[in-house]
Amino acid sequence: MKAINLTDKLARFASHWDPHVVADYNDNDVMVVKIKGEYPFHKHDTTDDFFFVLEGEIIIDIEDQPSHTVKAGELFVIPKGVVHRPRAAEEAKVLLIEPKGEPNSGDSDREASPKPRL
Amino acid sequence: MKAINLTDKLARFASHWDPHVVADYNDNDVMVVKIKGEYPFHKHDTTDDFFFVLEGEIIIDIEDQPSHTVKAGELFVIPKGVVHRPRAAEEAKVLLIEPKGEPNSGDSDREASPKPRL
Repeated sequence: MKAINLTDKLARFASHWDPHVVADYNDNDVMVVKIKGEYPFHKHDTTDDFFFVLEGEIIIDIEDQPSHTVKAGELFVIPKGVVHRPRAAEEAKVLLIEPKGEPNSGDSDREASPKPRL
Repeated sequence: MKAINLTDKLARFASHWDPHVVADYNDNDVMVVKIKGEYPFHKHDTTDDFFFVLEGEIIIDIEDQPSHTVKAGELFVIPKGVVHRPRAAEEAKVLLIEPKGEPNSGDSDREASPKPRL
């Protein structure tokens, strides 16, 4: 048990779309990720997807619906089964929560990230 | 679906130790809470307890172990079964995640909070 400083953790890697595990909450990975550019549209059939923006801002595009801008200090939960695409014009830093074993790429063709632990 | 601004949500109540639900993540309540003073020692037998400090700082006392200071931008997960007590000398604002139906007071004698939705 210890306090986990997210700024310190984020300083330890530079890659985008490469979530790193910083803590466990029940059967979930609590992760930090740096986002820049756009990810493929995808969905998670069995889980919601939790985003909390720590720095910068992201856009969540939702299939057939308006997009949402999510700024630092704001959270957004994408319900299971909803097709979505996160993107960011400039680098943004995000806290993510997903069940252990869930590929961050959902049902898309993109290879899932390994989710290393920091 | 919408972006949830935690500062806006926290501005809507003044009470301490009174978590308010701002979002759902799978079967969990995502909540904001204002902390000042000290809570009773307690544990949650079937779930971890997730704290992310948004503003100020808190102390997590752990039974028979050193205490932990958790500052803004830091998270702390108390594993299930671990007896703990959050406290704060000055008001702090915290993001909490707990399974729906879990009393925030755990196994203590303190009455559980109603966790209203904002």
